[in-house]
Amino acid sequence: MSGRILVVGLGPGNPDQVTPEAQTALAEASDFFGYGPYLDRLELSPGQTRHASDNREELSRARAALDMAAAGRTVAVVSGGDAGVFGMAAALCEAIESGPLEWCGIDFRVIPGLTAMLAVAARAGAPLGHDFCAISLSDNLKPWEVIEKRLRAAAGAGFVLAFYNPVSRARPWQLARAFEILRDILPASTPVIFGRAVGRPGERMAVTTLDEARADEADMATCVIVGSPETRIVERSGLPPLVYSPRSAGRPAR
Amino acid sequence: MSGRILVVGLGPGNPDQVTPEAQTALAEASDFFGYGPYLDRLELSPGQTRHASDNREELSRARAALDMAAAGRTVAVVSGGDAGVFGMAAALCEAIESGPLEWCGIDFRVIPGLTAMLAVAARAGAPLGHDFCAISLSDNLKPWEVIEKRLRAAAGAGFVLAFYNPVSRARPWQLARAFEILRDILPASTPVIFGRAVGRPGERMAVTTLDEARADEADMATCVIVGSPETRIVERSGLPPLVYSPRSAGRPAR
Repeated sequence: MSGRILVVGLGPGNPDQVTPEAQTALAEASDFFGYGPYLDRLELSPGQTRHASDNREELSRARAALDMAAAGRTVAVVSGGDAGVFGMAAALCEAIESGPLEWCGIDFRVIPGLTAMLAVAARAGAPLGHDFCAISLSDNLKPWEVIEKRLRAAAGAGFVLAFYNPVSRARPWQLARAFEILRDILPASTPVIFGRAVGRPGERMAVTTLDEARADEADMATCVIVGSPETRIVERSGLPPLVYSPRSAGRPAR
Repeated sequence: MSGRILVVGLGPGNPDQVTPEAQTALAEASDFFGYGPYLDRLELSPGQTRHASDNREELSRARAALDMAAAGRTVAVVSGGDAGVFGMAAALCEAIESGPLEWCGIDFRVIPGLTAMLAVAARAGAPLGHDFCAISLSDNLKPWEVIEKRLRAAAGAGFVLAFYNPVSRARPWQLARAFEILRDILPASTPVIFGRAVGRPGERMAVTTLDEARADEADMATCVIVGSPETRIVERSGLPPLVYSPRSAGRPAR
């Protein structure tokens, strides 16, 4: 008898940003796998069991969840934001591909969620209003040279950039290096947004420019957005500035 | 007296994917601006007024909404998906920047929503599980050469690509040309996903490879995702395949 896997994105942290679809999936599950702080967001009922694990154990967590689903349970695997964007959905697919054949037959469903960059962008205005890239600055699972190459390619072609995993205790220099690289490619006045814990206690938004952006503004809970050369800052007296990327791009100056 | 502007993303179309935050904002508004088919999704109450406009009139729609907010109304401007991703939020920022000074003082809030690529990706597995770009294939507001440059840069650097506005009656050849360009850069076996009207009546998902991808699979309601060289298809007997982009990238073959 085979159970189910529900991969659920919990959004950036504001409970009002969890979709009804995700709420329904969470109510159906018997067992919950995820990084402890994400599981802490859930109010589990007596019949629901919590299986917390540490941050960097995605693949073993995925395998444990699949094992339990194969045994007939309805298993929720949760991520912050969207589970499909630098979250657990890819780890589960990888585990299914490399695991026992029967795992391919498990009912597997991903329930999308609001990923962090969308919440940060909404707070700032519309910095992702035109072509953009999402890139993880973590070199745990890819060589740093690949990250540098992608930064140069995307910034050089006029994409706005959203950085996930900009910094951690084990990765203290990567964001500063990314800013350095971008300063060679983008105007000094390019807007940079630091969005920390948006929608949660401890939220902090900061808007600056590339020449003034300092990596120590960011921590593990921060999503950083770097504009394109077309991204604009609209100052508003008495209100935070609006940052937006115009719908039209690459035309002669308006 | 100044009112408010609430810019609301309605998600891909499944009502269960509208966040409670968006629902609350919609309940507070007196006037609703947007493209007709998006306004059709709302159930307005007697005191709420609908101001529908056509598809390509974003800037004049934004100005009309700001005018009404400046007169003291609570105005919702709706987009499908996320209003910050190729939606109305950027048009509103542009209108604020270029409009009368008093518009800068209007209480302006963007409520994020699930953008189409997240819903399509969730249905397919985890194709956006690693670095990716979102790019509009519409050359209404940018020259086609800019789009070609961005396609080459992003695909060449290993990003997964999500295409918005892949095709329309007025833009019949752009997606086929994009596939042509990508065939010079990416392996023939690169996975391609067509996700049409995901979560709505008429949903259709198709997974193929770059050498077999045909532009006429897509229409205006389709989001197309093209994998990176690392993106994988996991065949499952009796179930649709899973498509995912591994968390690790750019390492020697596993």
